[in-house]
Amino acid sequence: MNDATLAACIKACLDCAAACETCASACLGEANLDMMRDCVRLDRDCADACRLAATFMQRDSDRVAEACALCLATCRACAAECGKHKADHCQACARACEACADACAAMAA
Amino acid sequence: MNDATLAACIKACLDCAAACETCASACLGEANLDMMRDCVRLDRDCADACRLAATFMQRDSDRVAEACALCLATCRACAAECGKHKADHCQACARACEACADACAAMAA
Amino acid sequence: MNDATLAACIKACLDCAAACETCASACLGEANLDMMRDCVRLDRDCADACRLAATFMQRDSDRVAEACALCLATCRACAAECGKHKADHCQACARACEACADACAAMAA
Amino acid sequence: MNDATLAACIKACLDCAAACETCASACLGEANLDMMRDCVRLDRDCADACRLAATFMQRDSDRVAEACALCLATCRACAAECGKHKADHCQACARACEACADACAAMAA
Repeated sequence: MNDATLAACIKACLDCAAACETCASACLGEANLDMMRDCVRLDRDCADACRLAATFMQRDSDRVAEACALCLATCRACAAECGKHKADHCQACARACEACADACAAMAA
Repeated sequence: MNDATLAACIKACLDCAAACETCASACLGEANLDMMRDCVRLDRDCADACRLAATFMQRDSDRVAEACALCLATCRACAAECGKHKADHCQACARACEACADACAAMAA
Repeated sequence: MNDATLAACIKACLDCAAACETCASACLGEANLDMMRDCVRLDRDCADACRLAATFMQRDSDRVAEACALCLATCRACAAECGKHKADHCQACARACEACADACAAMAA
Repeated sequence: MNDATLAACIKACLDCAAACETCASACLGEANLDMMRDCVRLDRDCADACRLAATFMQRDSDRVAEACALCLATCRACAAECGKHKADHCQACARACEACADACAAMAA
């Protein structure tokens, strides 16, 4: 890939990690937390996988494709769950996850 | 400090991180999740701080004291919250946090 | 998998992360650092991937297979490089990487 | 602090983590690696501490001050070392570390 594609993927991963951390904390403050269980659970995994993928890209690792494949999988799952909820933080998180998944799909190929 | 003290502190940090991850996931499956909000919230921070402190000790970092100071603070807060709940995973987490805080206090001094 | 297999894989990942951190720091103190470049480089990735896999298993994530697949790939590469060097920390790291790769292979399947 | 200060500190931490990862990998490719030992060593700690501080801020943790205090300490040490070297990646890293340290100092107070 070229440098612009790589930089865009790193940014998408960092934006998604931020959205997941914010979403998990906001979910834990929601009145209807009972329906947010899976959202918090998936946010945790997705934030960690996004940070690892960004880190591997920043350090020009040999395992960028594999790290992006893991990130893609966590992002798709998190987007599917967050997309079900109307809260702004969930909708923002779902969008960030989809954008990150799309960027990682190109890197994982 | 000597090698045995260092090894014991690394083990206490890794045990605490494991207890926090397990506790957070178990909390998210509890019927009475509403009262577990702070438990999940603090488990997340504590697990991350414990992993960082263990990592800094394993790599013989110059900043072990500062990393253990952060770990100590997250452990005390998490122990105080988890200790309020009767669930086995919360009680086990509170014990692991206290043990880790004690070990880190010696390293942070 | 059963609980004993899971616990053994978590332990293998944590042992490998510790060996990688120790090896990287020890490499950076070696007189012949010039030949240790790839060792340090791969140790960094492997430690991070091992910690993530252990974390996902501890929290009973849906993405354990994918995290272990990434860990397996980083471990094999790190073992191949560290195994070339006679230093005790490199040999210990190569053994920990192989053990972790074997344990992760079962989880990734 | 206000939202703009918080957002600026998160960005400074993420920029610094990126600069440290890039610098460590670039150092490992330098002809004169022998003089870069401490640079790689400190880059590793600084990148990890910066990621943790950013994460704690993104999730609105109770321990932002303590995480930023650790980040400040790793950044100052890394800036002092990287600033000694003429390589572009070291100079860029030193600047990112100084900017991050300044931002974290306000949060840690």
